[in-house]
Amino acid sequence: MDQEPILDVAHLGHLELLTPKPEESLRFFVDVMGMTESGRQGDSVYLRAWDDYERYSLQLTASTTSGLGHAAFRARSPQALQRRVKAIEATGLGLGWHEGELGHGPAYRFHDPDGHVVEIYYETEWYQAPEALRPSLKNQAQRFPARGINVRRLDHFNCLAVDVKANREFFESALGFRLTEQIVLDSGEEAGMWLTATNKSYDFAYTKEAHGIKGRFHHITYALDSREEILRAADIFLEAGIPIETGPHKHAVQQTFFLYVFEPGGHRVEVANAGARLVLAPDWKPIRWTEEERKKGQAWGLKTIPTFHSHGTPPLPGHHGPDDDVQLDLSTNGIAS
Amino acid sequence: MDQEPILDVAHLGHLELLTPKPEESLRFFVDVMGMTESGRQGDSVYLRAWDDYERYSLQLTASTTSGLGHAAFRARSPQALQRRVKAIEATGLGLGWHEGELGHGPAYRFHDPDGHVVEIYYETEWYQAPEALRPSLKNQAQRFPARGINVRRLDHFNCLAVDVKANREFFESALGFRLTEQIVLDSGEEAGMWLTATNKSYDFAYTKEAHGIKGRFHHITYALDSREEILRAADIFLEAGIPIETGPHKHAVQQTFFLYVFEPGGHRVEVANAGARLVLAPDWKPIRWTEEERKKGQAWGLKTIPTFHSHGTPPLPGHHGPDDDVQLDLSTNGIAS
Amino acid sequence: MDQEPILDVAHLGHLELLTPKPEESLRFFVDVMGMTESGRQGDSVYLRAWDDYERYSLQLTASTTSGLGHAAFRARSPQALQRRVKAIEATGLGLGWHEGELGHGPAYRFHDPDGHVVEIYYETEWYQAPEALRPSLKNQAQRFPARGINVRRLDHFNCLAVDVKANREFFESALGFRLTEQIVLDSGEEAGMWLTATNKSYDFAYTKEAHGIKGRFHHITYALDSREEILRAADIFLEAGIPIETGPHKHAVQQTFFLYVFEPGGHRVEVANAGARLVLAPDWKPIRWTEEERKKGQAWGLKTIPTFHSHGTPPLPGHHGPDDDVQLDLSTNGIAS
Amino acid sequence: MDQEPILDVAHLGHLELLTPKPEESLRFFVDVMGMTESGRQGDSVYLRAWDDYERYSLQLTASTTSGLGHAAFRARSPQALQRRVKAIEATGLGLGWHEGELGHGPAYRFHDPDGHVVEIYYETEWYQAPEALRPSLKNQAQRFPARGINVRRLDHFNCLAVDVKANREFFESALGFRLTEQIVLDSGEEAGMWLTATNKSYDFAYTKEAHGIKGRFHHITYALDSREEILRAADIFLEAGIPIETGPHKHAVQQTFFLYVFEPGGHRVEVANAGARLVLAPDWKPIRWTEEERKKGQAWGLKTIPTFHSHGTPPLPGHHGPDDDVQLDLSTNGIAS
Repeated sequence: MDQEPILDVAHLGHLELLTPKPEESLRFFVDVMGMTESGRQGDSVYLRAWDDYERYSLQLTASTTSGLGHAAFRARSPQALQRRVKAIEATGLGLGWHEGELGHGPAYRFHDPDGHVVEIYYETEWYQAPEALRPSLKNQAQRFPARGINVRRLDHFNCLAVDVKANREFFESALGFRLTEQIVLDSGEEAGMWLTATNKSYDFAYTKEAHGIKGRFHHITYALDSREEILRAADIFLEAGIPIETGPHKHAVQQTFFLYVFEPGGHRVEVANAGARLVLAPDWKPIRWTEEERKKGQAWGLKTIPTFHSHGTPPLPGHHGPDDDVQLDLSTNGIAS
Repeated sequence: MDQEPILDVAHLGHLELLTPKPEESLRFFVDVMGMTESGRQGDSVYLRAWDDYERYSLQLTASTTSGLGHAAFRARSPQALQRRVKAIEATGLGLGWHEGELGHGPAYRFHDPDGHVVEIYYETEWYQAPEALRPSLKNQAQRFPARGINVRRLDHFNCLAVDVKANREFFESALGFRLTEQIVLDSGEEAGMWLTATNKSYDFAYTKEAHGIKGRFHHITYALDSREEILRAADIFLEAGIPIETGPHKHAVQQTFFLYVFEPGGHRVEVANAGARLVLAPDWKPIRWTEEERKKGQAWGLKTIPTFHSHGTPPLPGHHGPDDDVQLDLSTNGIAS
Repeated sequence: MDQEPILDVAHLGHLELLTPKPEESLRFFVDVMGMTESGRQGDSVYLRAWDDYERYSLQLTASTTSGLGHAAFRARSPQALQRRVKAIEATGLGLGWHEGELGHGPAYRFHDPDGHVVEIYYETEWYQAPEALRPSLKNQAQRFPARGINVRRLDHFNCLAVDVKANREFFESALGFRLTEQIVLDSGEEAGMWLTATNKSYDFAYTKEAHGIKGRFHHITYALDSREEILRAADIFLEAGIPIETGPHKHAVQQTFFLYVFEPGGHRVEVANAGARLVLAPDWKPIRWTEEERKKGQAWGLKTIPTFHSHGTPPLPGHHGPDDDVQLDLSTNGIAS
Repeated sequence: MDQEPILDVAHLGHLELLTPKPEESLRFFVDVMGMTESGRQGDSVYLRAWDDYERYSLQLTASTTSGLGHAAFRARSPQALQRRVKAIEATGLGLGWHEGELGHGPAYRFHDPDGHVVEIYYETEWYQAPEALRPSLKNQAQRFPARGINVRRLDHFNCLAVDVKANREFFESALGFRLTEQIVLDSGEEAGMWLTATNKSYDFAYTKEAHGIKGRFHHITYALDSREEILRAADIFLEAGIPIETGPHKHAVQQTFFLYVFEPGGHRVEVANAGARLVLAPDWKPIRWTEEERKKGQAWGLKTIPTFHSHGTPPLPGHHGPDDDVQLDLSTNGIAS
């Protein structure tokens, strides 16, 4: 190791999701996911999981369509923020400083090579629970809600990208993320990448966009404490009429125990188990999965569901709504009429 | 086996608990336990867990004190009911038929030798979930509530008795219950008995009343699906300010994974894991625990907490309220003020 | 209810499975399932789970093919046994008394209408653990093994039947089993039945044989304590090279949390969670699933895997071995080469 | 934040424990804990958990007494190692370079202010599983053992210190550890500290030595995946005759779900759940627990057991063996004789 690692990004901070059905999406995140509203501003409602230490981890913005508004990473220090801004500016992808956002200080925004909007900030507002939401144990941000599935904290997100490799190299060199796992096709093309800035084995992933369209979003993931809670979440989603796409099952890649559903605004939402698998090695050697290996399905043999490779947000052009490219599957998803 | 077993009792049906704090008790059972109100009549509110098939399993009755109103068992058939009534009448402990109760047909009431009121009935009202509580799977009584700790079904109850042996013999001979485990002191006195009419290893228990007072109640138990859910319940009780008496831990007797709390009306309420341990043998040989064995504490070594042997409902005479004989312990039970 | 229920069968006792690979099958049940060998006689090895109270629950018999040797139910009393024998003899399906079997007294054998061999017995040998396998808690049959997946007890089995209805009626009238759930096709044909003699929601199931061949076996099921243990079992099966057919997932029918694998002799083996769902009602109204409802897949939307409808033991004629009709699926089941 | 954080320590690498009963200790760690022997050298046997990426995480060394041989941290880079060595040398506590240890490169050894031996190294040997222990999923270090309690990875350790504050300041300034929680007595004296170099909420803790003796060890902790596995571990320890000191229960401090036992050599060994709680904030504000708060016991009200404050390794002078200061408790720990 000739060069020392860049350690300037502390962690994923929040995501902004656009929704064409703001009220239904809000009800999903509050009533079913068990999240707490912690602010409103303009067309946005801000939401948090009970273990998020910052004021919010999700900004839900009313819009004409679905998709990622922006993703935000917190820098490790003011100096770290300045260093990253300088590196991003050098790539020509910088968009400039963005101020006045709820809950955190100045953020520098930029495009990734696929056109998603990303920002980095340092100053942040720590969540102060109101009396009714104050926890019994003082080392916890907020009272456990005991409502719906009780998601614990924002875990990661997944974007689609036309050129996965270009995005990987950008996030590695300009931001200092480390690659932990990837999928490389027989042609040599990279079809998936999992990057981390923490001891979590990934903070976000980019997978191959099959339709040549830039800037689409694949899913947001909240963590639960145990696999048992994810199984119970499946029961609760079923009872609430939330379409389950696939799972619960265990991914071979990253060994994540997963469950994917669609929220009313059209986004794929994952709940996954938190943190049992950590990457502690500072010099972790990325795991490379081949095309053949990935054909074998998930860890215990489940075949990957076709919509997992086709559905993203916003929906494909010509599709009239987010449900369009998955309607065939959704129609048979519930059990009882 | 010269004589064939009596199989006339099908299962525990419901309990009536008296509460001096009806509104607070109701809020506990609905908001924290996750139960559903399914009727009101006179001074009583009727409550059910999501997997109870009958209309209710708990009748909460406003009163000047706490304690057991009555316990009710469902007979296996109309003929079984008649046979048991005849046998009870022969003991001289019969109280007579009781009609017009909400949710079930004529019940024959009687005293057990310790003076608790018990009834047996056959006809019952199956719960019909209203639209909003209809489950997704048709083989389930009610939608999973996703609120509080989500208790599944009434599991068992525990009374105190001055003469445990006399009560055991009464329930065995007049009702046909089978003894699965018991505690017998070195003096030969029986200090605890666990009886069943089902494949659950016990449907109720009687343990020694140390104060010579008849008719007191020890605890009611609702079942949860897994030990993980009981651990989570401990978190939820803590957040809700519900005093935890002891647990979660595993009893040596019956190997029940337990957690005991006090509801606002003063009753000890247990949540325990459902059904992993079944007694399938029709000729089960009762397990007899000695005084020395019981001194060793619970399964993994936890010492039995003193209030477990002293507190019952109603509280002891001279004590002004249900919290009195446990106040020392309760005062140090919570973590945060 | 004019007629009282027949309560003469206590529970499922054991199964005899034939295996063309006796040594490999034995290693699977001992090393991976975590069972204990408790006897050998002739071509058979006898095995038990740690919570089985009888000497064994599985008789593994070396054979030229796979399939069910026989299934055995324990009667509730000597008188109950005599009553059932008389009722079976009246059907003309009786085969006669069978004595000298390891671990239990005289058994009366008979054919079900599909030709499977079934027996009923009363006298049994309670397991006496040797010193090294003696448990710490005296209310447990045997020490927890801490090896492989540690199955707890025999739970149920599933046979295939050309005429499901005829078998249902036979087991109801001659043996006294109660129907808890069934699948009835639009044509009126019964395609599946779940019967119980206990508070478990089923002790065995028969589903439609699609190939017109009588006497085939679908699967044997052992119970584990929790869903978490079944997820871990999937990891352990994967590591041991045991082909996973489908799961873990939750059945809509009976809500069983399931995982199906193939043991080396060719039998489908299920591990499922024990006992959270009990049927306590003595007059349970059977749940009837329609063809359309069953097309919706499992509880959380998983499609039923084709081999689940085709593979049974012994394998179909013309197939050279048990793997034949599932080979396509098995070949892609593992992840790593 | 004027000064940027020191990020030179990557993680806890391994511990060396001395044992007066080397064969019994080895059997405990292999058979009960489910660890794998991965080397022998001199008087030491080297052991690993299945998810440890380095060759080993525990060095078990035969000795005349018990206690900590040394604790080892891995640096993030060669440059990071050099920087830390320089900083340690400046404190005057340096002992010098140590080479030729199994499994890793040159290590710089030093005393902490309490006299424990600690080392820091960078070069390490990644574990290469032999054929029989190769995992099915290539992103895993070793096959899941399915033996005993199957500990996942080394999680943290706890030393006793006469002057907790002096040790905290040393590890913060010379090594760059961050304080996440601490106990401060009413007198102002620090009685406990929890430090981390990762996103785990602590990598080690030091608590007050009540007997004025330097260099003693409190416990080593291995992580399991879920609370359910820790409950099962309690069953397995009970069956194996391993004395349980306290638990399972949840600490208020750090909210760790814990279970403490004594290994045959006398050390307290903890198993705890892995990683659900992460500290992601780069500027985490340490939680300070007061004397009064700590008197309230553990999270759900369990009182802290007296031996937890008295027993350390090596045992106190005058005690003839490690069991001495806990013998009263140990004698009543098991249930059945």
